[in-house]
Amino acid sequence: MHPVPIQLLIESFEQLPGIGHKTAERLAFYLLNNMSVEDVEFMANNMLDAKHNITLCPVCQNLTDATPCVICSSPKRDRSVICVVETPKDVLAIERTNEFDGLYHVLHGALSPMDNIGPEDIKIKELLERLSDGEVKEIIMATNPNVAGTATAMYIARLISPMGVKVTRIAHGIPIGSDLEYADEMTIVKALEGRQVI
Amino acid sequence: MHPVPIQLLIESFEQLPGIGHKTAERLAFYLLNNMSVEDVEFMANNMLDAKHNITLCPVCQNLTDATPCVICSSPKRDRSVICVVETPKDVLAIERTNEFDGLYHVLHGALSPMDNIGPEDIKIKELLERLSDGEVKEIIMATNPNVAGTATAMYIARLISPMGVKVTRIAHGIPIGSDLEYADEMTIVKALEGRQVI
Repeated sequence: MHPVPIQLLIESFEQLPGIGHKTAERLAFYLLNNMSVEDVEFMANNMLDAKHNITLCPVCQNLTDATPCVICSSPKRDRSVICVVETPKDVLAIERTNEFDGLYHVLHGALSPMDNIGPEDIKIKELLERLSDGEVKEIIMATNPNVAGTATAMYIARLISPMGVKVTRIAHGIPIGSDLEYADEMTIVKALEGRQVI
Repeated sequence: MHPVPIQLLIESFEQLPGIGHKTAERLAFYLLNNMSVEDVEFMANNMLDAKHNITLCPVCQNLTDATPCVICSSPKRDRSVICVVETPKDVLAIERTNEFDGLYHVLHGALSPMDNIGPEDIKIKELLERLSDGEVKEIIMATNPNVAGTATAMYIARLISPMGVKVTRIAHGIPIGSDLEYADEMTIVKALEGRQVI
């Protein structure tokens, strides 16, 4: 049996998703044999720092170390448009395009009755609260194009439309640079439905 | 761009072997979204504890939190036999059999001129020191049955044999429960060479 500190270390790594016992053991021995004390301290401190200092932005619910987050507090962003996404990673993906200058709202999930995720489990209430002052003119639903993401988009659209705010959905179609030949049928159907005059 | 604490956290995870940027990002978000503050503190403390408190046993060079380690200090172990292995995991593998009651010596590697690993880079000197008092009668070379492990076994045998200590090598052959049909040729050759009267 391993000495107790090694066992605890292995158990800690096993807590992480996608890391089984063998990988946890490999990581533990790497930490003990190949990393310097400074590297381990740097890593442990980064974990504690991130956990202690990262919170949800009270406005857009994105992960942030500032309150409100840098996007919500930027005077350069268009406050009339909110792009609604499922996760903080989706915000990053859209920000990388440098094409969107509105605000975001992170739901932290999508409606999924099968997994017992209902409207109270994601940040829908917080989104509705942002619409009360009438500044927002459009909500872009950028949830994922799967069953849960589409259901979430429809659900939120039905809640918000009566409030006089335009709700739009991002386009689905053949990805740029890919081959029609390899696209799945639903994507082709969506691409045909969404055809535009050129 | 992620807030700085998240970026540092991702970079920390990326330091670990076999963990690329995407996986590091996934682990970082899991830590932020799914783990409690207590879980993260427990994990960070386990990392620091293990790194600060685990050392090499001054006798057998195995990783330990006691000096000397529990095996080296046990009065129940046969001090006349030392089983030489490459890594701490090999010690565990042999301990799990409950069949060996001698001592161990962990080399922390195997000779491999291709990778610039020479006799000074593994714990050979420390092994020789243990033979000086004449208590040890047999050295069992349990390094891996590959080129590096075999070369290491031969090298150490040549150093130790003149000292009057018996040096043996673990048997190679067909693994129990496996099929001769699927064994590789070298294993079959070794199994034939090592045949015994029944």
